Amino acid sequence: MKEIKTIEFKDDILYLIDQRKLPITYEIFQCETYKEVDFAIKDMVVRGAPAIGATAAYGVVLAAKEFLNNSKDEFFKNMEEALDLLNKSRPTAVNLMWAIRRMRNLIEENKELSVNDIYEKIRIEADNIFNEDIQTNKQMGKHGNEVIPEKATILTHCNTGALATAGFGTALGVVREAFYTGKDIFVYADETRPRLQGGRLTAWELRQEEIPSKLIADNVAATLIRDGKIDVILVGADRIALNGDTANKIGTFMLSVVAKAYNVPFYIVAPTTTIDFDIETGEEIEIEERGSEEVTHIENVRIAPEGMDVFNPAFDVTPSENITGIITEKGIVRPPYRENILKLK
Amino acid sequence: MKEIKTIEFKDDILYLIDQRKLPITYEIFQCETYKEVDFAIKDMVVRGAPAIGATAAYGVVLAAKEFLNNSKDEFFKNMEEALDLLNKSRPTAVNLMWAIRRMRNLIEENKELSVNDIYEKIRIEADNIFNEDIQTNKQMGKHGNEVIPEKATILTHCNTGALATAGFGTALGVVREAFYTGKDIFVYADETRPRLQGGRLTAWELRQEEIPSKLIADNVAATLIRDGKIDVILVGADRIALNGDTANKIGTFMLSVVAKAYNVPFYIVAPTTTIDFDIETGEEIEIEERGSEEVTHIENVRIAPEGMDVFNPAFDVTPSENITGIITEKGIVRPPYRENILKLK
Repeated sequence: MKEIKTIEFKDDILYLIDQRKLPITYEIFQCETYKEVDFAIKDMVVRGAPAIGATAAYGVVLAAKEFLNNSKDEFFKNMEEALDLLNKSRPTAVNLMWAIRRMRNLIEENKELSVNDIYEKIRIEADNIFNEDIQTNKQMGKHGNEVIPEKATILTHCNTGALATAGFGTALGVVREAFYTGKDIFVYADETRPRLQGGRLTAWELRQEEIPSKLIADNVAATLIRDGKIDVILVGADRIALNGDTANKIGTFMLSVVAKAYNVPFYIVAPTTTIDFDIETGEEIEIEERGSEEVTHIENVRIAPEGMDVFNPAFDVTPSENITGIITEKGIVRPPYRENILKLK
Repeated sequence: MKEIKTIEFKDDILYLIDQRKLPITYEIFQCETYKEVDFAIKDMVVRGAPAIGATAAYGVVLAAKEFLNNSKDEFFKNMEEALDLLNKSRPTAVNLMWAIRRMRNLIEENKELSVNDIYEKIRIEADNIFNEDIQTNKQMGKHGNEVIPEKATILTHCNTGALATAGFGTALGVVREAFYTGKDIFVYADETRPRLQGGRLTAWELRQEEIPSKLIADNVAATLIRDGKIDVILVGADRIALNGDTANKIGTFMLSVVAKAYNVPFYIVAPTTTIDFDIETGEEIEIEERGSEEVTHIENVRIAPEGMDVFNPAFDVTPSENITGIITEKGIVRPPYRENILKLK
């Protein structure tokens, strides 16, 4: 396996693979301040719920570094501002809020320490978040592999691989695990308009690992599902409600409807950090609407006429009744979801 | 209404709006030989089942013109070759085969005439096909308008407008009729990957006519349907089987599954020339698979990694049980389809 270093923190610099540029060019985006981290999340230099969480954690480290020479009062005030900014960099992925809350609690618990010592704690905690995510993903890979038949054809949407996480991946982590354990799998990757994370990023990871696969326009998935060409569908998640409703990349819900109509197993693969224990159903999830140029332009080339309005939600919500199971690092959660999700808390 | 002259035949030259270039540039593609017409259909200078039919008919005129100085035997032999070539320019749209068959029959019926007189008959017949298509579309518009509520929000897929026909359009013709008759409608247009006929062509027509509308990525449609934002779905057709199964642009089938799951009316709008009375079900329809670069590149910009395989079917088949009705120039056909479709013969 070629290691894909989506996020790397070294000598107080955060190095991110610039995912806006893949697969055409492989470039590293450097962040030396938390405001650069905020930009990197907003502009989707880095994306994918778990990757955003780990990136934001390192953003908090850079903020602490910046305020090292502050008085303690100033430090707490400035850190609060930085935490707030990073917390709002994107609205849907709950891992972001989770990572920020974990950092905020850490600061709170250690406020008797010196600024320097708090900084040290923050740095270690960010590394923990990063390392735990990789371990979590490998655990999910093992649990998920149990539902993958020997010669499975797997359909996936968006990018949920090493690029979407600290490493290994969620749904694509399960694909990796199945492939590494010698199962003779085949993958269909939805290109995932409008931002083409499937065509750009998942296809890139599949090529890097030489996993047998084909890229399809999102419109093709339904026919493959109906025609019995797909054994299992694996997707990630940006936020999961207590009842199992799952927000994920736009297009996921459509797949779930077709999967249900044609009895194809449909699994969410996500760490328990993606569960929002504070919301009962998917109706409470804020869906980010992004700019129209994501639809009207590709690589700065205009593809729609001037003046055309666009509706561009980045996510949709799949109702839990369309979900066969939720693969987490603690095992596969099946219905009844509310009861079984609460056991994970 | 600004007239959109998709196809214009004047002084033995066929002028086509080059639909590969819209909406960025408005260019006219000239055909002076039937081989140029064959290229124009294959390369999708012109597309849309009814437009392909009329274009092919003018291709036959250009062939006849080219062979005007032949002996009668040579003329028939060369015309047969030209008819065969044009007939195979694309495989799925039945209107193409229908137009070619009509021309072949005409030549057969008039083979006692001089080459010059046959040429004249062919030229008039091509004009008839062209003019009938516009009349047919206007009739469909009137019938279809009956199912459009006063303040309907309409979802459509691909391009089925003036650009897909000799004029006015099929599904988008119904939208035009509803708009012209003063209904306060709103249109969501699927961009329709991979070739983006919705984003490029339907959006262009909607802007030309200033019909209130928004463009969406194909992945967004399911959420709109589920959330009760869509009153009716109107799509075109490339071929309809006796049992009502309908081949249309890839992505149509997916819409039909979601529409059925959430009880949204789903109509096919197509002239009776799109019905293939020779096939019982959609299983007999050949689905064209097109080149991978339609998915991996947009406007010559690569968007997927080198070496990635692609599966790129241009059409899918919607089973008749997902179809609320088929709007034709002779009225709206409803189930039982086989019985009611046979009445149209």
